Amino acid sequence: MKVYLDNNATTMVDPLVVEEMMPFFSDIYGNPNSLHKFGTASHPAIAKAIDRVYKAVNARDSDDIVFTSCATESNNWVLKSIYRDYIVNGDKNHIITTEVEHPSVYSACKALEEDGVKVTYLPVNSQGIVEAHVVKSFITDKTALVSIMWASNETGMINPIKEIGEICKERGVLFHSDAVQAVGKIPVDLQDIHVDFLSMSAHKFHGPKGIGALYIKNSQPLSPLLNGGEHMGGRRSGTLNVPYIVAMGKAIELATENIEEKMASIRAKRDRLEDALLELSDTFVIGDREHRTPNTILISIKGVEGEGMLWDLNNGQIGASTGSACASEDLQANTVMLAIGADNELAHTGIRLSLSRFTTDSEIDYAITHFKKSVERLRAISSSFAKVGPTPGGESKECELHFH
Amino acid sequence: MKVYLDNNATTMVDPLVVEEMMPFFSDIYGNPNSLHKFGTASHPAIAKAIDRVYKAVNARDSDDIVFTSCATESNNWVLKSIYRDYIVNGDKNHIITTEVEHPSVYSACKALEEDGVKVTYLPVNSQGIVEAHVVKSFITDKTALVSIMWASNETGMINPIKEIGEICKERGVLFHSDAVQAVGKIPVDLQDIHVDFLSMSAHKFHGPKGIGALYIKNSQPLSPLLNGGEHMGGRRSGTLNVPYIVAMGKAIELATENIEEKMASIRAKRDRLEDALLELSDTFVIGDREHRTPNTILISIKGVEGEGMLWDLNNGQIGASTGSACASEDLQANTVMLAIGADNELAHTGIRLSLSRFTTDSEIDYAITHFKKSVERLRAISSSFAKVGPTPGGESKECELHFH
Ligand SMILES: Cc1ncc(COP(=O)(O)O)c(C=O)c1O
Ligand SMILES: Cc1ncc(COP(=O)(O)O)c(C=O)c1O
Repeated sequence: MKVYLDNNATTMVDPLVVEEMMPFFSDIYGNPNSLHKFGTASHPAIAKAIDRVYKAVNARDSDDIVFTSCATESNNWVLKSIYRDYIVNGDKNHIITTEVEHPSVYSACKALEEDGVKVTYLPVNSQGIVEAHVVKSFITDKTALVSIMWASNETGMINPIKEIGEICKERGVLFHSDAVQAVGKIPVDLQDIHVDFLSMSAHKFHGPKGIGALYIKNSQPLSPLLNGGEHMGGRRSGTLNVPYIVAMGKAIELATENIEEKMASIRAKRDRLEDALLELSDTFVIGDREHRTPNTILISIKGVEGEGMLWDLNNGQIGASTGSACASEDLQANTVMLAIGADNELAHTGIRLSLSRFTTDSEIDYAITHFKKSVERLRAISSSFAKVGPTPGGESKECELHFH
Repeated sequence: MKVYLDNNATTMVDPLVVEEMMPFFSDIYGNPNSLHKFGTASHPAIAKAIDRVYKAVNARDSDDIVFTSCATESNNWVLKSIYRDYIVNGDKNHIITTEVEHPSVYSACKALEEDGVKVTYLPVNSQGIVEAHVVKSFITDKTALVSIMWASNETGMINPIKEIGEICKERGVLFHSDAVQAVGKIPVDLQDIHVDFLSMSAHKFHGPKGIGALYIKNSQPLSPLLNGGEHMGGRRSGTLNVPYIVAMGKAIELATENIEEKMASIRAKRDRLEDALLELSDTFVIGDREHRTPNTILISIKGVEGEGMLWDLNNGQIGASTGSACASEDLQANTVMLAIGADNELAHTGIRLSLSRFTTDSEIDYAITHFKKSVERLRAISSSFAKVGPTPGGESKECELHFH
C-alpha cells in the first residue's frame, strides 16, 4: 500500500479536474485573446472557471480575481507592487509580516529589506499563532502593508484573520493574506472577513501545480508584476493558460462545495491518526485541533530525527514531510518549530502528516501501524533518546509546545 | 474544413506532448522538492526535459535554463532585474529596445521609464528589421541592456541577432533576446550566437500555454523576480509545474529535431499560399522571404480592412489575425506596420497568416480559395478601394513597404 500524507506540499490532481481541462490542449487550443472561433471557443469555460473561483471565496463582482502562475507569484506580486506603489512612489516604508510565513512571502520581504524597506517579522505564540493585538501594536503611520498567512503550511494553525483584518481596516493599512493553506481546506468567506489581497494556489486543493490566483478587493490599483499584452484587464499579462484556468475552477468548486462535510470526514481520519500516534510516549502535536486545518498534524517524536523518520516512512511507501517542501531538499530544522520556541534538537524531530479527501481509512490504519513500528525501531537506535530515556508522564520542555 | 492559420498567436498542443505529460497529473503527482518517492519519482522526467531544452538551443552545462510561467514572465524578469541590479544598485540608467517588440518587453520598458530609466526604442527599416549599426550607435557607457527580439511575431522578420550580439559583447553591454518566435521555428544555436538572456515560450511550438523559460549565459547573476522556496537553485521559486516542464521538453525536442526539414515543408506551403495571394492586385507582403520565419505572412490588401477580412475568414472557419493576439481584443492598427512607415489606413489592412507543421496542403488550398473570394467580396463593398480603384501595376505608397 502507498500512503500519501504530504498534501500540504502538493496534492494529486483530481481525475475530474483532469477530465475537465483535457479538451483545451489539442482541441480548443486557440488563444482566447484572438478574435476568431478557435480563440473564442474557450470563453465560456474561462468565464465558468472565474465564476467558480469567485463563488468559492464569496467575492463580489466589484472585486478582481486574477489568475497567476502560482501563489509564489501572487505573493511576490503583492509585496513588490506595494513596494513600488506605496513605498517608492509614496510616503510609506514599512511592511509587517510574521516569522513563520511561507518562503514566498518571507524571502520576498528579505529582498525588499535589501531595497531599504523596514520589515517587521512578528513572533507567534506557543501555538504557532500570530496574535491580533501583536499585529496592532506594530502598525505605524509608515506601515504600507500587513501580510499574514491565513493558515500555516507547517502546523496547519489558523491565524485570527478576521480580527487582524478589522485592525488593518481601522488603521487604514492594506492587508494581504497568503491563504494557500486555507482555501479548499476551511471556509474562506471574503464578505465576512476583510482582506485586501488574498493568494491562492490550485495544487493545494487537487488542481495542477503552476496556477494560482490573487484576489484584489474592490479591484483596487496594484501595479502589475508582469507587464505585457494587457491580458486580464492589464493586471497580469501572458497568454492565458486556458487548461489550468479551467482546472483551477473545477478544483476549487470540488474542494469548497459542502466543505463542512469534507472537513468533518478528513478531520475524523486526522484525529484518529493523531490519537493513535499520541499513544506513543514523548510525542507532541503542535497547536490545538480547534485552531488547526482539519488535515494537518505536525508531530514531534522525542529522540527521533525527522529525516530518519521520513526515510523510514518512505521505505514503507508513506510520503510525509519534515515541514515545507518548498524549502528545498535541504535537511533543515523546522523553522516554525524554532519560531515557536523549540530548541534545535527538538526542531529536528518534527514530522508533518497532511491528509486529503482522497485519504482512506485503510491508509490511516496502515500509516498508524507503520509509524509506530518506525518510532520503536528508530528510538531503539537513537543515541539521544537512549541517553535521556523516556520522560515519565510525558514531555516537559521549556518551550511551550502544546501537548495532547 | 477548419483551417488554423494563427500559429504565431498560439499553437495546438501536439498530442505526443499531451501523452508525455499526462502521468504527472494524477499518477506521479508528488512535489519534486519532497524527499519521498512520490516527489522524487518525477526527477528523471524533469532532468530529461531540461536536457531537451539545453539541446534545442545548444546551451552549455555552465549556462542556466530556468523554467518560468511564460515568456512574458521571462521578459519582465530580465528587464526588471537588470533594472534592480544594474540601475538601482549600479551606475547604469539606459536600456535599448525596439519600436516593434512584443508588449511584454515594450510595456515593461514603459513601466521602467516611469521609474526613471532612459529607454531608447529603436526604429526598424522598411523590412521591419532592426539594423545592427543602429543598435551600435545608441549604446553608451550608461547602457545596462539591449533587448531585441529574435524574430517578430507580427511579420516573422528575423533580426541580425548574431551581429547585434557581437556588438553588445564588444561594448560590454548585456544582451537579451525575446526568441519566442524563433525557437522551434528556425535554428537557434547559442554557441554560434552571443546572447546573455534568451526568452522562450512553449505554446508557440506545440507545447502548452503557461510555461516558458529563460536562458542565462554562464549562469550569471540576475535577481529573482519570484523569491521564495529556492526552487530552481533559487532563481525562480514556485512549486515546479512538472507536467508542463515535461511537456515543454517534449515539445521543444519535436520542434527542433530535423528542423531544416520541417522548415522546408512549412516554407513550401507558406510560399504557395503567399504566391497565390500575391496574384491579387494591390497586395503586399511585409519583408522578404529569406529574412522571415518560414511560417509567417503579414499581408496588406489595399481597400480591405483587416478586421472585416478577419471576420470573413472566420465565417469560413479560417483563423487568422490582424497582428498580435496579445494586444487584447481591441481593433487596432498593426503597430509594426505603423513602425515600418505605413499610414494609418494601410496599417488597418494587415492580415497575418501563420502556419505550423500541422498545416496541410489541402488546408492551404482551401485557404487560398476562400481568401481570394473574401477579398473580392470585401473590395466590392469597400468605399476606399472603390474610390481609388486598383493601382495600375501594383502599389506605390510612400512608405517603403516591400512588394513582391
Ligand atoms: C502557505 C503557502 N504559501 C505559498 C505557497 C506557494 O505556492 P506555489 O507553489 O503555488 O507557489 C505554498 C506552497 O508551496 C504554501 O504552502
Ligand atoms: C515575440 C513574443 N514575445 C513574447 C510573447 C509572450 O509569450 P507568453 O504568452 O508565453 O507570455 C509572445 C506571444 O504571446 C510573442 O510572440
